[in-house]
Amino acid sequence: MSDTFDALWAALAPLGRHRTTGGYRRFTWGPADTEVRAWFTAAAAERGLDVRTDRNGNLWAWWGEPGPDAVVTGSHLDSVPDGGAFDGPLGVVSALAAVDALRARGVRPARPLAVTVFVEEEGARFGVPCLGSRLLTGAITPGRAAGLTDAAGTTYAAAMAAAGLDPEHMGPDPDLLAGIGAFVELHIEQGRGLVHTGHPVGVAGAVWPHGRWRLDFSGRADHAGTTPLADRSDPMLPFAATVLAARAAAAEHGALATIGKVLAVPNGTNAIPSRVRAWLDARAPDEAALRAVTAQVDAAARAAATDNGVLLTTYQESASPIVRFQTALRDRIAAVAGGGPGEPVPVLPTGAGHDAAVLAAQVPTAMLFVRNPTGVSHAPDEHADTADCHRGVAALADTLAALAG
Amino acid sequence: MSDTFDALWAALAPLGRHRTTGGYRRFTWGPADTEVRAWFTAAAAERGLDVRTDRNGNLWAWWGEPGPDAVVTGSHLDSVPDGGAFDGPLGVVSALAAVDALRARGVRPARPLAVTVFVEEEGARFGVPCLGSRLLTGAITPGRAAGLTDAAGTTYAAAMAAAGLDPEHMGPDPDLLAGIGAFVELHIEQGRGLVHTGHPVGVAGAVWPHGRWRLDFSGRADHAGTTPLADRSDPMLPFAATVLAARAAAAEHGALATIGKVLAVPNGTNAIPSRVRAWLDARAPDEAALRAVTAQVDAAARAAATDNGVLLTTYQESASPIVRFQTALRDRIAAVAGGGPGEPVPVLPTGAGHDAAVLAAQVPTAMLFVRNPTGVSHAPDEHADTADCHRGVAALADTLAALAG
Repeated sequence: MSDTFDALWAALAPLGRHRTTGGYRRFTWGPADTEVRAWFTAAAAERGLDVRTDRNGNLWAWWGEPGPDAVVTGSHLDSVPDGGAFDGPLGVVSALAAVDALRARGVRPARPLAVTVFVEEEGARFGVPCLGSRLLTGAITPGRAAGLTDAAGTTYAAAMAAAGLDPEHMGPDPDLLAGIGAFVELHIEQGRGLVHTGHPVGVAGAVWPHGRWRLDFSGRADHAGTTPLADRSDPMLPFAATVLAARAAAAEHGALATIGKVLAVPNGTNAIPSRVRAWLDARAPDEAALRAVTAQVDAAARAAATDNGVLLTTYQESASPIVRFQTALRDRIAAVAGGGPGEPVPVLPTGAGHDAAVLAAQVPTAMLFVRNPTGVSHAPDEHADTADCHRGVAALADTLAALAG
Repeated sequence: MSDTFDALWAALAPLGRHRTTGGYRRFTWGPADTEVRAWFTAAAAERGLDVRTDRNGNLWAWWGEPGPDAVVTGSHLDSVPDGGAFDGPLGVVSALAAVDALRARGVRPARPLAVTVFVEEEGARFGVPCLGSRLLTGAITPGRAAGLTDAAGTTYAAAMAAAGLDPEHMGPDPDLLAGIGAFVELHIEQGRGLVHTGHPVGVAGAVWPHGRWRLDFSGRADHAGTTPLADRSDPMLPFAATVLAARAAAAEHGALATIGKVLAVPNGTNAIPSRVRAWLDARAPDEAALRAVTAQVDAAARAAATDNGVLLTTYQESASPIVRFQTALRDRIAAVAGGGPGEPVPVLPTGAGHDAAVLAAQVPTAMLFVRNPTGVSHAPDEHADTADCHRGVAALADTLAALAG
């Protein structure tokens, strides 16, 4: 089992890795994405799994004929810009390794079992996270997905077509969903919630509600060396005030708020920008706290914009309500993954969105987390110890064996 | 005279203009730059001027054999990203039109006269403004210039070579400089200093001292949805504090300070940046005020970096001391440009750097400004009325006639 995990991991590791940063740039429908999808298809085929591509481009590798009450596990292979090796791939590699482990144990599942790879989970290229699972469940319309554009202006539909898939087929697939009896996603932990528990593996309690907003501050381009301060409409100023307001609001409400992406136009050293576009990512333990944070940020941004003669328009790009995973499934998995009923693994909340959280609206869903010693994620230094990864595979295999009978 | 100005202007206008923004993207040694250089060479040749390229790529169109005590006028043709049509080109087009005007008047200059085009005045592509005049005067070493890189990592030397020039020849040219008796640059005003004077043309009093600093805030990339606030080293926060501190410091000292360019890495919506790189442009009426502003910004940036567990490194990319143009030449031109000794044109300070200010260290230098009704510059809306442009050509022709005898 450890062997097959290590071999799979080693084969996937170089694909889409940036030579100098060491981070991953696996962007949906791009060349690195094509490589990792091909890697998955080949790895699944080697195991005799029947690989199918659903109408939204998600991959499904079936052990046994697809049928009702299937047990499904998987994650995603795309990355944020210069992301780490584990976020997404750990769940896919562990799923394949768990299949190997079950076979090595002589398990023959009574229910069909599938390993999935979901498309554009990070939203790094087209701005909407969990796009593959949202399309599958109908949480986003195919029309809206088709029209999403990347930084170069390429539409999602065009990028998908360029990768050889037909965007005309996109849309919800209630039949496929109806056949899933349980979905389990294994993922690296993205904080340090497991570090002090002594457990290498935990299960998800709830996913914090979160949202993403685009803020467009529009001012007037002018010469930085000649325009008096009083004559300026400099959008960088209210943008800066908003960055600080977001941090303060998050601290006040025990939440998280981050502005990690900013684009100034024309972005010249001696030009006052005509526009600064920024994205706010906000998450909180409950909906009320999230609303309080975003209302506070919005008010501060509007006040600063007005003070500086700048126009502010905001656009909510995504909204994810709180997700509580099915308690019965969670408790069952917590018991199994711990090695027995006597020692259930810890239950952890998380601020990160996942395909599992999208599917949870329609399918009994659970998540397993593998310990992250530094808590670093979405960065080249993201790491889990190999021994913990092997424990994750074992926990997933135990879980699948229990669920698939 | 008006006719030749209008025809020259119309021929130059479409080159390097962006289809949707209407702004100019004439970046040194790029395709649009090659086009405008070819346009200048052809326009000068049509006038029987002898066009030479100096060792740094600056263009010199000679009327008469190059020799001692030459009268030189010109400006630049490169632009900031999405810059206006006038900043630079107005001085070049007016210089050619002034040559036509002198000939139409039957003037035969006693001294050699040249029209120049300086390279990379804006510093938009390689970061150092007035690069052509700095190389010519030895204000920057050829080695440093050769190693400057653009956003894509292309060196200045490689870009210059790709445009067909030999970067090995770069360096100061004391012989060429020694032959210049006077240099006059006509430029659009970049504030509204002339609007309330009733004069379409003014002369430069002094150029404010100014400097450009790069600020690198280095933190740690992390997942925006899972990293507790206390565990973050988010470089966006001290960057934002610095933007606000720069504005406050400038206001306090009657100066200008602008952060118009920012690059976040990896610039992902759900990633805390590993690094935010920003550029500070600061200018003040005198050196003491400039030092006070930059010291204040530096202190605020360092304090905010420390507060957020972020490393700050700063690098001064350019420093231009105050430039006072030669008083005798200035007063002579102010009298001539006004149409006679009885009505001298206004004398204006400016916060913008110019090749004339670089040359002023070694050559008697003056500048003429043409009225800018809105004060907008470095933006597509930059504008001067055609009638004022014609008055600028007349003032420049009068000036050249007076200086060249």
